[in-house]
Amino acid sequence: MDTNPQHKPPSIESLCHLNAESMDKLELRIHQSLKTNVPLLKELALYLFSSGGKRIRPLLTLASGKLCGESNPQQIELAAVIEYIHTATLLHDDVVDESTLRRGNKAANQVWTNQACILAGDYLFSKAFQMCTNVGSISALSIISETCSALAEAEVAQLAQGRDISLSQERYMEIIDGKTARLFEAACKVGAIASNASDEQIEALGEYGLNLGIAFQLIDDLLDYTAQQQSLGKAVGDDFRDGSVTLPVILAVQNADEDELSFWKRSLQDLNQKDGDLEAAIELMNQHGTLTQSFEEAKIYADKAAKSLTCFPDSPLKSALIETTDFCVHRYF
Amino acid sequence: MDTNPQHKPPSIESLCHLNAESMDKLELRIHQSLKTNVPLLKELALYLFSSGGKRIRPLLTLASGKLCGESNPQQIELAAVIEYIHTATLLHDDVVDESTLRRGNKAANQVWTNQACILAGDYLFSKAFQMCTNVGSISALSIISETCSALAEAEVAQLAQGRDISLSQERYMEIIDGKTARLFEAACKVGAIASNASDEQIEALGEYGLNLGIAFQLIDDLLDYTAQQQSLGKAVGDDFRDGSVTLPVILAVQNADEDELSFWKRSLQDLNQKDGDLEAAIELMNQHGTLTQSFEEAKIYADKAAKSLTCFPDSPLKSALIETTDFCVHRYF
Repeated sequence: MDTNPQHKPPSIESLCHLNAESMDKLELRIHQSLKTNVPLLKELALYLFSSGGKRIRPLLTLASGKLCGESNPQQIELAAVIEYIHTATLLHDDVVDESTLRRGNKAANQVWTNQACILAGDYLFSKAFQMCTNVGSISALSIISETCSALAEAEVAQLAQGRDISLSQERYMEIIDGKTARLFEAACKVGAIASNASDEQIEALGEYGLNLGIAFQLIDDLLDYTAQQQSLGKAVGDDFRDGSVTLPVILAVQNADEDELSFWKRSLQDLNQKDGDLEAAIELMNQHGTLTQSFEEAKIYADKAAKSLTCFPDSPLKSALIETTDFCVHRYF
Repeated sequence: MDTNPQHKPPSIESLCHLNAESMDKLELRIHQSLKTNVPLLKELALYLFSSGGKRIRPLLTLASGKLCGESNPQQIELAAVIEYIHTATLLHDDVVDESTLRRGNKAANQVWTNQACILAGDYLFSKAFQMCTNVGSISALSIISETCSALAEAEVAQLAQGRDISLSQERYMEIIDGKTARLFEAACKVGAIASNASDEQIEALGEYGLNLGIAFQLIDDLLDYTAQQQSLGKAVGDDFRDGSVTLPVILAVQNADEDELSFWKRSLQDLNQKDGDLEAAIELMNQHGTLTQSFEEAKIYADKAAKSLTCFPDSPLKSALIETTDFCVHRYF
């Protein structure tokens, strides 16, 4: 029997286990707060909140809070706020991207109308701010509202960017910073704030969340080319079919000869795709090693995330947060 | 020359005049706060904010603030917040309703994509909360976030209601309460809060705003059947063509004989419309006096709004706020 913990793949099990009690309270709170007299809204929100999301962002809020102090109701409330905002964002994203699958289920816009999804997203956003206001921390409100602006700004920037294959790596990193990493950063920071943490601790956890978020998104973009549909919970190759320009593509375009450039222009930029194009794209990425390069890039950010926790004394919770950075990149395998 | 002020139709000129300086500052603030590196977002927001809206909601914030104290920067900031929220709502509304005209111009969703409008609306919402957080008043934040939840809830309720002509007057009133009146109420309350007004003053101005908002929406729904397109700034008969069930319709359905009921079912509920149906609908409304009845209903709320200001000493500003309630219903003529 292999008992060497080194051989166990990294997971978020420990993090979940150490925050199990708070996570149960969070689940209760999310469902309790869905008080609305409008049945359509209730059904839609329930569908979203019961769809088996991993709750990684609110888990980070709870863990950050616990790393800086005792568990308390403010942490639960702010974790719910983070999950509400994330869910609202997914809902509007799915309308914008005309998605068909989300977390292995039909995307909400396939079950309800786009109209209902737009308005339900607005409701979840507003509700999040309402819950955040009830906590009464101006610092938390400030972080969350700034994050939401940055998020929406990045989403518009990505939309405006369209399928332009000349997107630079720098611009791509700016977009994933706003689109994903900032909410991870906010999730960690507000948890720390709920524990009245010191500025140093809040900043350290912010660093952790931001870098973890970047790594997370880089791997997400990779998985779109390498995962099995079942484990991904959404359609593999979606980014390619939508013409999303992500890091493995950017790097492949940078290394492309004339023929390859025509291929990327036709298939991804002009979205004039033929059978076998996705496989050809993956082949080119493997040829130029851009999937590996993207993976290495993700590892750099995951390492940064882990290192940002040095100001905290060693503890099982700190180890679990560090293991989460490993888990985040090793989802790739 | 007729110099009798009694014969001058009521207007919001006095209210605008008495708050002219703050309104200029508001305009500046709205444009200053549009700091974004995303050109598409800037263009879209500029289009919306320059489209000739009357800014009646932020005007109410400024006037309420001034009625309770001196003008101050917090009033300006919260007035901008109210206009940002209103604009975000319009933007999402236009996507949901597939509108073509707004304030006499092409609706934004005709100029940009629905996707851009959804995300830009999210940005304006987030920006509003960010600005509100900067003011630092938890009471204002609480009112604004609650109002936004109620607003989104009412929009979903209206969507779920669909074109069902059996909608009751009570349910209709609930919807316009959430959809319109609550934002008017919030606009007035946060203005008072920015002036550190007493609870009595905040409540009184809230009453004023709420009732004015109901009157405003009742008249808006009337104008859809009676106005000239040019003065309305949107297409006349839009509600009828969309199958929106508003008060003049509800009352006409309540008074309908069998033939009339079939007419309403076919044209409005089933949206199976023929040439001349809009005119026939208006004819039925006139026959049963439901346009007049709706107008009388609006007047009741406008009167309530005016009466809620009794706790304030007489002043030109108070008179201008009362005149605004008259203006609101006399837009009908």
